[in-house]
Amino acid sequence: MKSDLDQLLKHAGLDGLAVFGSSLHNPAMRYMVGDVFVNAAIVVKQAGQEPVLVHRAMERDEAAQTGMSLLEIEKYPWKDFLEEAGGDTLRAEGTRWSKIFSDLGVHGRVAIYGHLETNQNYGILRHLDSLMPGVELVSEPSARAVLNAARTTKTDDEIERIRRMGEITTEVVGLTAEFLSEGHGKDGLLVDSAGQPIRIGAIKRQIDLWLAERGAENVEGVIFAVGRDAGVPHSVGHDDDVLPLGQTVIFDIFPAETGGGYFYDFTRTWCLGHATDQASQLYQDVLETYETVFALLKAGAAPQAIEKATCDQFEAQGHPTYRNTVSGHDGYVHSLGHGVGLAIHEQPSFRLTSDSSPELLPGMVFTIEPGLYYPEQGMGVRLEDTILLNASGEPQILADYPKDLVLKIAE
Amino acid sequence: MKSDLDQLLKHAGLDGLAVFGSSLHNPAMRYMVGDVFVNAAIVVKQAGQEPVLVHRAMERDEAAQTGMSLLEIEKYPWKDFLEEAGGDTLRAEGTRWSKIFSDLGVHGRVAIYGHLETNQNYGILRHLDSLMPGVELVSEPSARAVLNAARTTKTDDEIERIRRMGEITTEVVGLTAEFLSEGHGKDGLLVDSAGQPIRIGAIKRQIDLWLAERGAENVEGVIFAVGRDAGVPHSVGHDDDVLPLGQTVIFDIFPAETGGGYFYDFTRTWCLGHATDQASQLYQDVLETYETVFALLKAGAAPQAIEKATCDQFEAQGHPTYRNTVSGHDGYVHSLGHGVGLAIHEQPSFRLTSDSSPELLPGMVFTIEPGLYYPEQGMGVRLEDTILLNASGEPQILADYPKDLVLKIAE
Repeated sequence: MKSDLDQLLKHAGLDGLAVFGSSLHNPAMRYMVGDVFVNAAIVVKQAGQEPVLVHRAMERDEAAQTGMSLLEIEKYPWKDFLEEAGGDTLRAEGTRWSKIFSDLGVHGRVAIYGHLETNQNYGILRHLDSLMPGVELVSEPSARAVLNAARTTKTDDEIERIRRMGEITTEVVGLTAEFLSEGHGKDGLLVDSAGQPIRIGAIKRQIDLWLAERGAENVEGVIFAVGRDAGVPHSVGHDDDVLPLGQTVIFDIFPAETGGGYFYDFTRTWCLGHATDQASQLYQDVLETYETVFALLKAGAAPQAIEKATCDQFEAQGHPTYRNTVSGHDGYVHSLGHGVGLAIHEQPSFRLTSDSSPELLPGMVFTIEPGLYYPEQGMGVRLEDTILLNASGEPQILADYPKDLVLKIAE
Repeated sequence: MKSDLDQLLKHAGLDGLAVFGSSLHNPAMRYMVGDVFVNAAIVVKQAGQEPVLVHRAMERDEAAQTGMSLLEIEKYPWKDFLEEAGGDTLRAEGTRWSKIFSDLGVHGRVAIYGHLETNQNYGILRHLDSLMPGVELVSEPSARAVLNAARTTKTDDEIERIRRMGEITTEVVGLTAEFLSEGHGKDGLLVDSAGQPIRIGAIKRQIDLWLAERGAENVEGVIFAVGRDAGVPHSVGHDDDVLPLGQTVIFDIFPAETGGGYFYDFTRTWCLGHATDQASQLYQDVLETYETVFALLKAGAAPQAIEKATCDQFEAQGHPTYRNTVSGHDGYVHSLGHGVGLAIHEQPSFRLTSDSSPELLPGMVFTIEPGLYYPEQGMGVRLEDTILLNASGEPQILADYPKDLVLKIAE
């Protein structure tokens, strides 16, 4: 958590960190400033010191809400820097940042963060780099970046916010199941009371509405994919598609607090009305693996050891995995899970063949989402919950929801 | 528009461009691939050639929808690059990108784009840079970046999508006005039928709902700020705040198509029930300036000349402007407007003291939003419409809405 930052900086041999940009769609800045809107801001946090927020005058009210030490960027007049740089905006910005860094006493190895437009940013940072021989701008592997590491372990307040998003998410999943169950089968398709096929687009619009009513939003989209699309993990489904009974439907929903905030991540696989034997078997394999893996979750465990156990079990069931093939199309093709917080994908990562994620710790919130995909057979299954390792280091699903495969429909 | 890219590359002395990242919250990638979801993708567009999309196998269906030439990134196995880099993920990624660039024949001066996490990205790009002596990774001032320039002039399809968002936006603004008008005054505050004060949070939740019902979302938030908050341009308003009658309320709404897409941007200033003489005068000044400026909009005009005319008029009315003061608190403190498209703020920019934006062209879509702010007097006024320069180079408001200051309330 944030209070670990000094220790993490020390451990990484860093003298500080700097975060750039807006607090919207920029988890690093949001994490540092909290639920306020600032734009084109800079947070400078030096080892052993409180962070300073450099902000625009017009956002001074928002900035004041952070409780941080403040510095108005207008004290570094853009006009002057632009003139000095002969009208070159990238150099002007780099020089302005170097002046701010210098006034704040920034020195040594400084990790830099922020979701920014590379086109300008790369030029600005190279110029900044060239101006400050006493400062090294440090990039870090994602799994070991100090700010990412701080973010992995959640405070009680963060956990409650994620849990609340989980309640909303599962409530909306329940409403979706109810909505589908009110349809009935006709010629093998799900139809409404007027006998018209229910299309994925209509379901997605309804989901958006239910979320908005509850103070949540689908800021990263929603996956509602059927048949072959369900067999392709990131296929989001097509609005015009109808819903054949009996086929696997993957419903992956990952909304965030309205206005940018904490996420929840959740997936169920349903077959409408009935399931084929083949789908049931696939489902059983994923569910068994889910349960095996869940039992391994505890503080101190290495994410990659758990990922290996996942691959072991899927391979023992006869499925290809991304560990033993490179096709990326059939079997277990993505990794077991990822941290969830201000970003939908954050640390820890379970993925093999990435740099090692640190061991699991109490306070971590992450998904497990084993899945199997056979697009050419028109099916895919994924089961996902968001899990907290509680203070005792034990796993706790943040929002329970039944794991039935078949959704009853009047056929 | 996109078909101008080859000419723009040539004019800028560039041999190509590359766009990195996801198609969500990353307008450059969204622009290149259209309305599909890809993640960790790369688009390479070389001068005189069709663009190539490098994508993940699990997003192959989405990738195929783009109609672009495709290359699956799994052909460059991560495992091998990571091994070669001794487990250093940043070097592995940089080397992988260099291999892809080399196989695609990328050479010379290449502009790079993408909304990316700087922490990893800076290290990856520096490594890529060091590996390819025949390639220069180019940053460009925002106003002259080739991809930004292409995006400024919209196709008919893009214009229709923005216009449709304008219809939704003004419809929701109308519903908001209606909702407020259904309240009545009590002890100087707007209250509901039960006599309870109406709070800003309740209005904002209602707005989210109306937008969701219409396929739009407040992906960048909404400003609903009253009194002193209205006097601070980027103060978004506080959920718990009540609405005193007679004070200026700034309502700035800038939703996008659900799932990431085109924006609209719109502001009205209202006084509930009645307006003070002071607020009416301020409003009159802004409205007059709006009208003066609107008359200057035409193809061929220089944005900065129009901005100067804006400052001239505000200064003639006796207000400080950001041109003649540096405080950033009182008077005209932000610039006249900005382009609107896949980003809420894009080119052209009217702002003085930035590098020169190109002349206005037919097909450009941008806001004009003159505003005056006096936070210590508890008031602010802004009027904003999104405007198209049509094929004849004449300005056209994309979604009309009345400009009345006073919103009638039973007092």
